[in-house]
Amino acid sequence: MFVYKHKVHYYETDRMGVTHHSNYIRIMEEARVAYLDAIGASFARIEADGYVSPVMAVEGKFLSPTTFDDLIEVEVYIQEMSLLKLRIGYRMHCGGKVVFEGWSLHCFLDKDGKALRIAERYPQFRQAVESDQEQA
Amino acid sequence: MFVYKHKVHYYETDRMGVTHHSNYIRIMEEARVAYLDAIGASFARIEADGYVSPVMAVEGKFLSPTTFDDLIEVEVYIQEMSLLKLRIGYRMHCGGKVVFEGWSLHCFLDKDGKALRIAERYPQFRQAVESDQEQA
Amino acid sequence: MFVYKHKVHYYETDRMGVTHHSNYIRIMEEARVAYLDAIGASFARIEADGYVSPVMAVEGKFLSPTTFDDLIEVEVYIQEMSLLKLRIGYRMHCGGKVVFEGWSLHCFLDKDGKALRIAERYPQFRQAVESDQEQA
Amino acid sequence: MFVYKHKVHYYETDRMGVTHHSNYIRIMEEARVAYLDAIGASFARIEADGYVSPVMAVEGKFLSPTTFDDLIEVEVYIQEMSLLKLRIGYRMHCGGKVVFEGWSLHCFLDKDGKALRIAERYPQFRQAVESDQEQA
Repeated sequence: MFVYKHKVHYYETDRMGVTHHSNYIRIMEEARVAYLDAIGASFARIEADGYVSPVMAVEGKFLSPTTFDDLIEVEVYIQEMSLLKLRIGYRMHCGGKVVFEGWSLHCFLDKDGKALRIAERYPQFRQAVESDQEQA
Repeated sequence: MFVYKHKVHYYETDRMGVTHHSNYIRIMEEARVAYLDAIGASFARIEADGYVSPVMAVEGKFLSPTTFDDLIEVEVYIQEMSLLKLRIGYRMHCGGKVVFEGWSLHCFLDKDGKALRIAERYPQFRQAVESDQEQA
Repeated sequence: MFVYKHKVHYYETDRMGVTHHSNYIRIMEEARVAYLDAIGASFARIEADGYVSPVMAVEGKFLSPTTFDDLIEVEVYIQEMSLLKLRIGYRMHCGGKVVFEGWSLHCFLDKDGKALRIAERYPQFRQAVESDQEQA
Repeated sequence: MFVYKHKVHYYETDRMGVTHHSNYIRIMEEARVAYLDAIGASFARIEADGYVSPVMAVEGKFLSPTTFDDLIEVEVYIQEMSLLKLRIGYRMHCGGKVVFEGWSLHCFLDKDGKALRIAERYPQFRQAVESDQEQA
């Protein structure tokens, strides 16, 4: 399982004393970018190939608070892949607890706004799914 | 229906040229704060009463992009209220389109971390639900 | 004097219980955008004319803390204008106190990265300087 | 010289295609936190000792743009230390260029808002200044 690490910054906390919930959505993006790098379909490359990859939807469950200086470990994995859509899952751990679970849904669009067939264009995603399944 | 207005700031855009998806989660918070003010259960007052109100979960669907200087109109309403939990819904419009739909789930905790019975402590929420239903 | 109003959002606070200092730099941008609108040289228009306007430098003094739900009033004015550079000043008030003073330095670049002669291209800036001086 | 590394996140860019200027102020904070850890006067410890350390002022010069996925290397050093104030300097490099130079000014306050004599309470700062001078 791919793991991304994020140390909580002071500016990510709020006056409740904890990491502001909106920042988990940003940490999901950081983790996703690192995951795509790791499987060989980096976001920088996808953009260089002339595509954009908008986020279509996100969901997050905030299970336990974290705060400044905490080290969050983010497991990233492909939850589901259809012809045109990719759902990426995230499970964040800190201090022995699961602190967050979430997913994000993506598509890839060319210059004309037409959706790519993901696995045809980037077989790396198919391989990543298979590799995750073998490990499970 | 309560409506909150947000003009997109330059710093809220990303290099795809659009409002970064994480910022809709923050706009949800802005709209929620204004809504709670409007129904007489302001967040500042809830904190002054000694409670905290963590966000338990959020979901958002990004339906159409917005960008710098766009005026987003956010409809806010109570989607569901149980004994201990409150689900608030958001529908954002811009330029005649629905650009975002989402919800956030909340509880209210006292100093000991014990969950409040929401409608008992803040009858304003019950009244807001009833008032929304009458209008619908 | 032009005045922009900003109500502090919950997500702008940090665990010290106050508005995080980095957010004043963002509020400066919000105020600058509103000021440029007001003098008829809106940022959206400058971008539509094919220019970019990078921030070259900023300075800020954090004089007194603010927090969630505080209303900050931002005075914006042109501090200095040379052939190629514009220095905009900001003084923020809240609850009868000056809470922040700062400035930002700007130039305007065309597609080739060449700096514009500001007052020639946008006489609105010259007029704004003169109007500020008359009022002073 | 202490060096902190920051990889630019997608959400840190704006629609000009570059890292938004306000984020350098946040990267300064990240680098400062790491520097204080390294010299043995970590921010978490200063807070645990019962002090707060507000930022009194910042200045930044944006010398060259950076963007998503760029690796910024931040040199951090003590620029000046007086009885009650500490000025920390930052020089950021990316791709062989200096992209940013800035400083931040700090004091340390006890629970009553009284300013600490920095070098008396935390001799680590004196040692860091001396160690920097030896290397220079």
